Amino acid sequence: MLPKTVNVGIIGCGIVGTGVVRCLLQNKRYMARHLGFPLKLKKIADLQPRKKRIVKIPAGLMTTDANLVLNDPDIEIIVELVGGTTFAKDIILTAMRNGKHVVTANKALVSKFGLELHHAAHDCNVDFYYEASVCGGIPIIKSIREGLTADRIDSVRGIVNGTCNYVLSRMTDDGLAFKDAMKDAKKNGYAEADPSLDLDGIDSMHKIGILTANCFGRWVPQESIYTEGISGISALDIKCADELGYTVKLLAIARIVKSKLEVRVHPTLLPKQSMLASVRGAFNAVEVDGHPIGRTLYYGEGAGMNATSSAVVADIVDIARNVEPGSHSRMPTFTFMKKEVPLRNFDDVECRYFLRWRTDDRPGVITKISRELSKRDIGISSVILHEFAKVQPYSIVTFMTRETTEKRMRAAIKSIDALDVIQTNTSMIRVELVD
Amino acid sequence: MLPKTVNVGIIGCGIVGTGVVRCLLQNKRYMARHLGFPLKLKKIADLQPRKKRIVKIPAGLMTTDANLVLNDPDIEIIVELVGGTTFAKDIILTAMRNGKHVVTANKALVSKFGLELHHAAHDCNVDFYYEASVCGGIPIIKSIREGLTADRIDSVRGIVNGTCNYVLSRMTDDGLAFKDAMKDAKKNGYAEADPSLDLDGIDSMHKIGILTANCFGRWVPQESIYTEGISGISALDIKCADELGYTVKLLAIARIVKSKLEVRVHPTLLPKQSMLASVRGAFNAVEVDGHPIGRTLYYGEGAGMNATSSAVVADIVDIARNVEPGSHSRMPTFTFMKKEVPLRNFDDVECRYFLRWRTDDRPGVITKISRELSKRDIGISSVILHEFAKVQPYSIVTFMTRETTEKRMRAAIKSIDALDVIQTNTSMIRVELVD
Repeated sequence: MLPKTVNVGIIGCGIVGTGVVRCLLQNKRYMARHLGFPLKLKKIADLQPRKKRIVKIPAGLMTTDANLVLNDPDIEIIVELVGGTTFAKDIILTAMRNGKHVVTANKALVSKFGLELHHAAHDCNVDFYYEASVCGGIPIIKSIREGLTADRIDSVRGIVNGTCNYVLSRMTDDGLAFKDAMKDAKKNGYAEADPSLDLDGIDSMHKIGILTANCFGRWVPQESIYTEGISGISALDIKCADELGYTVKLLAIARIVKSKLEVRVHPTLLPKQSMLASVRGAFNAVEVDGHPIGRTLYYGEGAGMNATSSAVVADIVDIARNVEPGSHSRMPTFTFMKKEVPLRNFDDVECRYFLRWRTDDRPGVITKISRELSKRDIGISSVILHEFAKVQPYSIVTFMTRETTEKRMRAAIKSIDALDVIQTNTSMIRVELVD
Repeated sequence: MLPKTVNVGIIGCGIVGTGVVRCLLQNKRYMARHLGFPLKLKKIADLQPRKKRIVKIPAGLMTTDANLVLNDPDIEIIVELVGGTTFAKDIILTAMRNGKHVVTANKALVSKFGLELHHAAHDCNVDFYYEASVCGGIPIIKSIREGLTADRIDSVRGIVNGTCNYVLSRMTDDGLAFKDAMKDAKKNGYAEADPSLDLDGIDSMHKIGILTANCFGRWVPQESIYTEGISGISALDIKCADELGYTVKLLAIARIVKSKLEVRVHPTLLPKQSMLASVRGAFNAVEVDGHPIGRTLYYGEGAGMNATSSAVVADIVDIARNVEPGSHSRMPTFTFMKKEVPLRNFDDVECRYFLRWRTDDRPGVITKISRELSKRDIGISSVILHEFAKVQPYSIVTFMTRETTEKRMRAAIKSIDALDVIQTNTSMIRVELVD
């Protein structure tokens, strides 16, 4: 008996969609050795069927009508690549109701409606895969839910936004100011025309939400994830952090501390010699700590046509392997702990803090700042005040604190900003130690 | 209908076996959320049933007779953890013939008999999984054959032996001599009583063979893998490499260059700022380059009870998911390219070379050395000869060459070693550039 052909339909043939088509056509012989059955691209729906694309689409595959894909009885797997959270959601739900398995790269959608889509996939008895929604060029969803399936996961920390990491890398390695690094990112195609979703940490928040569900078996609503972007980071912050032996990265963090779950996205100081600090340019990396596996890290390109299309096609293949034996739902969309781990209030999160000010250059500066910290029982691990031979119009003062809570730190900062010796409001960056 | 319980038997309950038992018992509730069906540890065979172990083995599970596990009709999955390549092979073949799926952590066995075991699993229609055989704490087999299933893989380069990386890290970070770093590794449990399999690169050769089969779809016999260990690396080599901006690592490399496959294991200079160079201590990392995915890297603990048991249990779960739907052979043991890529002769492999000598301190040294290189058309990219105010009993000279072949380099070294100005034979270390 000949093995059954598995038919694939794509809805949305923009950049990623074109990459998926190219990968399916060009890497056929590499994939064939893994597969043992033919994978056939049956139909592609896109509103611009005649647009010039980097790959020649075989005649007869293109349509402008998504319904022709959704209702094709031969198609087993539908790939949603239209983006957004409205039409994309309709497409996916219709596909599922039509008994089609679904693959998506849409992080905004999975982040917002993941739970609903999980239930829909379950009710329709179809597979719903979304590897490409988190760090396209890193098989991180697969690694966590299959490779680390035996583990109790304690923390996941990631550089999950390539735009931010590119900008911070240029600022760190070449001393650029934030706005010059941004210009450079746009010029080199590492930033969108409107980069605010990236710079404000929203994109990273979407991804850490999806990772959290996979690592800790509970769904955390977007509004419960503390999110802070990188637009407040200055070249001076980076220089001062460097003097202390740290690199600044936008980190997405989810971890269990004392039986509560913390989920947050913010600029973070990391020790320079750590693996995460070594991630440069538009690359992403995710570090997962678990027991018994210990520390693991996964690194690759986070976005772009190539990396993302690889993840989409891997998902297609994974689902296709279930078609012949009928082993759908072998891997549920999400899985949940029976007893949900409670969330920690962000006020109660504890970490070290890097603090920097422009102050007057006169007696009393260090006394006044340190008094506000000690009042709130916040310890200090290092202080740098650079020496100048003569009195200057200002000094630059950097403090690194011991661990304390957000609540205490915010109160301390409020008082410090009100001090008469302080010329600019506190630059505060949270610190992650990597043991 | 209640979901079917999947029964597991373990043969060999030493360090890794005990870790597997502990993981299955202690992480039950974490695994339960992924699984949806019960996984039951049914029987354990070990010659020392009463040995004190870090986990209490439930009463009635232990036997000294492997046949009781092999012939138990309830057991679906058998884990081979006896080690070695004789009895272990018998166990696995018997288990397969009895219709049992098999999981192993035995790299020596898979490296030597992988092809035979692949065919046996296929003939018996059972799953044979071996994730734990390569870098226990990194789900690298899964990442390559599933996560990167869409990709044409171009190269795989790994630090796959924790003992060697620990020793080289101590030499690099703390300036220790090789023998002192080795003593320290033994003291801290990072080296076996007889560490020669690790230090001579044999263990790395086993692993790169298994990775090669997964990445390039062909089996490379052990004797075709050029293998060189780290015992010839001196603290001085490491210091001189550092001056040029490089770190020394034992690297296992397999890559396609001009349509031919190179597979080799040897000490290698890597640029200090590369991700692989940042891998310290007993950790492992594997970098895989493919198209369309680009560069990816996977990092974690390479060995030890914890990391290895996580990989073994992940394999058990993966196979267990196939039991109810009967989707065995969903993932073949190995898969092969229809047209096998030819191997490159090691003589024809090209790379840069780091060369270091102790020479006389007199006129003509640089001329004589560089003449031998230029005679063979070998370019030089840098030279360091450290300045001393007065004539010394010897000089230390370091050269970095441009790309050339092994054959030319060996001929050049032979002539250079015969020069009258050379006091010690050439220290030669190959160089990997990381773009």
